[in-house]
Amino acid sequence: MSVYTALTDAEVAAWLRRYSVGTLAELKGIAAGIENTNYFVTTTLGRYVLTLFERLPKEDLPFYLNLMSHLAHHGIPCPAPIADRDHQILAELKGKPAALVTRLPGETVLAPHVQHCAAVGGILADMHLAAESFGGHLENPRGAKWWRETAPKVMPFLDAERESLLTEELRFQSLHGPVALPRGAVHADLFRDNVLFDGEVVGGVIDFYFAGVDTFLFDIAVTLNDWCILPDGRIDPERAHALLSAYHATRPLNDLEHRAWPVVLRAAALRFWLSRLFDFYLPRPGELVHAHDPEHFHRILRLRISEREPAPWVS
Amino acid sequence: MSVYTALTDAEVAAWLRRYSVGTLAELKGIAAGIENTNYFVTTTLGRYVLTLFERLPKEDLPFYLNLMSHLAHHGIPCPAPIADRDHQILAELKGKPAALVTRLPGETVLAPHVQHCAAVGGILADMHLAAESFGGHLENPRGAKWWRETAPKVMPFLDAERESLLTEELRFQSLHGPVALPRGAVHADLFRDNVLFDGEVVGGVIDFYFAGVDTFLFDIAVTLNDWCILPDGRIDPERAHALLSAYHATRPLNDLEHRAWPVVLRAAALRFWLSRLFDFYLPRPGELVHAHDPEHFHRILRLRISEREPAPWVS
Repeated sequence: MSVYTALTDAEVAAWLRRYSVGTLAELKGIAAGIENTNYFVTTTLGRYVLTLFERLPKEDLPFYLNLMSHLAHHGIPCPAPIADRDHQILAELKGKPAALVTRLPGETVLAPHVQHCAAVGGILADMHLAAESFGGHLENPRGAKWWRETAPKVMPFLDAERESLLTEELRFQSLHGPVALPRGAVHADLFRDNVLFDGEVVGGVIDFYFAGVDTFLFDIAVTLNDWCILPDGRIDPERAHALLSAYHATRPLNDLEHRAWPVVLRAAALRFWLSRLFDFYLPRPGELVHAHDPEHFHRILRLRISEREPAPWVS
Repeated sequence: MSVYTALTDAEVAAWLRRYSVGTLAELKGIAAGIENTNYFVTTTLGRYVLTLFERLPKEDLPFYLNLMSHLAHHGIPCPAPIADRDHQILAELKGKPAALVTRLPGETVLAPHVQHCAAVGGILADMHLAAESFGGHLENPRGAKWWRETAPKVMPFLDAERESLLTEELRFQSLHGPVALPRGAVHADLFRDNVLFDGEVVGGVIDFYFAGVDTFLFDIAVTLNDWCILPDGRIDPERAHALLSAYHATRPLNDLEHRAWPVVLRAAALRFWLSRLFDFYLPRPGELVHAHDPEHFHRILRLRISEREPAPWVS
């Protein structure tokens, strides 16, 4: 349950007066999400999500909200922050930073077909192209710097095999990872639970609160590692091909990106193995219930290292 | 038929590449509207309207598009212009200024009930409050200056009664009209065909191409003169009360506005009588088919002048 801060109808109705969104019709807590408190807010004029930011650094919030505004303004179906009468998109409620964003239609698809993967590849390319004109900057908070800081904290909990894998992969990434690939503001967490589908059409891309500036290829790798895998973690060539060729059709990948792909696919697995190890062994208070099993990404990392066949790339 | 410029699927598909909206799925001309060419554009990512500006002064287009952006950013369900990859909302297609905006859900309601009128009053107040932080400026192109320029052009076509009414009303407005009422960027043409309803909820306010800076009260009067009248033009007290009290609940009217109401209600009737006389007697080429009968607003102006009972105002 992610409603850390309880809100009453009266509190929200009063708070909404700062906006031009009509009056409150319905308020409903949302269980999903672990960083923020979220409520569905329905008014006489529309459907919104109200977010109270419980833990994110306040100085990073403008990056997230401005990125969502920018992408929505460019036609990407993502939550669009609503400006209040003082023209501000970041507000405060119950002493916490808060934002009102548009609510998008659709449902998550946990067992995606080829068509869903193609749709995700297409919107990801459109997001990257739209992000090129975005001026905000926040280095990916879960990038290489964070890996180096976090690895020593989880090492004491690992057995010899895992400790060695983590050490070796960090060394491998520091040697082969830093290549001058196209970069920009990326979602960096486009898992299946962050895309809403209206049938086979994307209704919305949500939860930009792990976004940051990183390579576009890293964003693709994160996405593929969740959308296009078989139950054992191996890549499903058919879905991977669908995602990548849809991406490529909108934003063609360059030679450097082609060559860096296997390295970045490993980096994307490392990033989530590390964060899940950290959340599992060093949970913040009240967080244990949400911790994902780190083994899933341990397995994926091992597989990406061992996969020697050519990547299921666009033909 | 308002498709002045025919577009092919191939032309639009190529033009859409400047945007991050996926790829073209369907293109369909829209018959409504008289100033612009409009097409429904459905892509793999969403539903849009493509507008080619056929006659509006190019220098005024940023005002309209920026106002729509501003209101949408503030939560008003109105068409939101989509920015292209160069972050521009005003583009060009076939040598004409063009824009891509979001398409809104819902249908027009030509026989509105009390609930529809209340919904329109509420959104109108929200639009006015949201417009207060809008920085653009374009004096209402159909304001008092335009009345004075246009009246002499239509006078030769009028009989003695109408000529005298027009002359007298212009004099009355020049004496009593200019009061320091709250002003801002207003829609100025919120007739029934410019509001889309999803049931009794407003799905969208459309067609901002008569917008300009004028008094908020003028905008209310234009709206009421279309939404809250009986077939003979008299005000329907019940619907007028619904619209005005919903408005008042969100943006309370001040004393000056209360007192100016009967004068502004006449001004709003005059404005449309004049433009319909102009379009009827001095049509632009190809426009005659769209000309509304000027008599409707002649009758409404006469009625507003004769109505002596207190305005159906908020209690």
